Amino acid sequence: MPVIQITMSQGRTVEQKRELVKVLTRETARILNAKEDGVRVLIYEVSKENWGNAGVLGLDM
Amino acid sequence: MPVIQITMSQGRTVEQKRELVKVLTRETARILNAKEDGVRVLIYEVSKENWGNAGVLGLDM
Amino acid sequence: MPVIQITMSQGRTVEQKRELVKVLTRETARILNAKEDGVRVLIYEVSKENWGNAGVLGLDM
Amino acid sequence: MPVIQITMSQGRTVEQKRELVKVLTRETARILNAKEDGVRVLIYEVSKENWGNAGVLGLDM
Amino acid sequence: MPVIQITMSQGRTVEQKRELVKVLTRETARILNAKEDGVRVLIYEVSKENWGNAGVLGLDM
Amino acid sequence: MPVIQITMSQGRTVEQKRELVKVLTRETARILNAKEDGVRVLIYEVSKENWGNAGVLGLDM
Repeated sequence: MPVIQITMSQGRTVEQKRELVKVLTRETARILNAKEDGVRVLIYEVSKENWGNAGVLGLDM
Repeated sequence: MPVIQITMSQGRTVEQKRELVKVLTRETARILNAKEDGVRVLIYEVSKENWGNAGVLGLDM
Repeated sequence: MPVIQITMSQGRTVEQKRELVKVLTRETARILNAKEDGVRVLIYEVSKENWGNAGVLGLDM
Repeated sequence: MPVIQITMSQGRTVEQKRELVKVLTRETARILNAKEDGVRVLIYEVSKENWGNAGVLGLDM
Repeated sequence: MPVIQITMSQGRTVEQKRELVKVLTRETARILNAKEDGVRVLIYEVSKENWGNAGVLGLDM
Repeated sequence: MPVIQITMSQGRTVEQKRELVKVLTRETARILNAKEDGVRVLIYEVSKENWGNAGVLGLDM
């Protein structure tokens, strides 16, 4: 039943997202001894003005 | 004080969202013996390339 | 594929959680024209010292 | 390592987001005796049809 | 209506959480020109074996 | 800057969590062409009475 939520900068290709879903599902199921069928992946894309690190907006890095 | 967060495929109508907010708030308050006033609902819409199930991207289903 | 995440005060009974999962799944599927099979519900319980409203800690209300 | 996630109505300026990231990071680090370097802030913007309070859609308030 | 969710290492005092809720609410309302009444803060505490940075478990740092 | 949040049933070993953090960080960084240094992983453990699938509580499966 693992649910994986990824928040990342927008702009990745469909191919990257397809591989991300495939690989994270496979590896998580393998490590946790869970079924791949039960793994759900959700991707939240945020623009550079919507995240910050160490107090600095992504846009300003 | 319950906060309900729903992640779902984009494309639902305003009317569906209005009913979702109304019904989930009412039912959650009823079941938990909480006040409707304190229930917050947040909806996160994701495109078909931003979620996956069982290792397969929504776009490919 | 809706994923519903509920953050609420701890201390509810198993029976309340069972009904919450059942009813929110049924109503969400009905309103969104989705399959109940695809609805996932996750409950996060927080103690009164781990949430606040209007700047006041739950513990102090 | 605190991760701060803010869900808010869309439409704020870049300047507001820049200050939000700067101030929340600084205050969180100060209060928790943590390093600013380790604080991550993520902003999720939702439209008025994607949130509700007390059972009422933001759009209808 | 901002909802602020903080995930942090467990072990902080009630006093720290009280100040965190108070200050983050006040500053967020001020910067966003929102009412303090509408700000909700949720704190999720995780143990050192439940988070990682740069591929290393918190427990091993 | 990817932030990965995993909600899963409680009861996994530290060794499983260590490998989960290591592998998900490595694979995510590789697929997204991001630095491993910027990847944060957060694990939320929930008991069987705190999640449901298809309307059924985990405890009842």
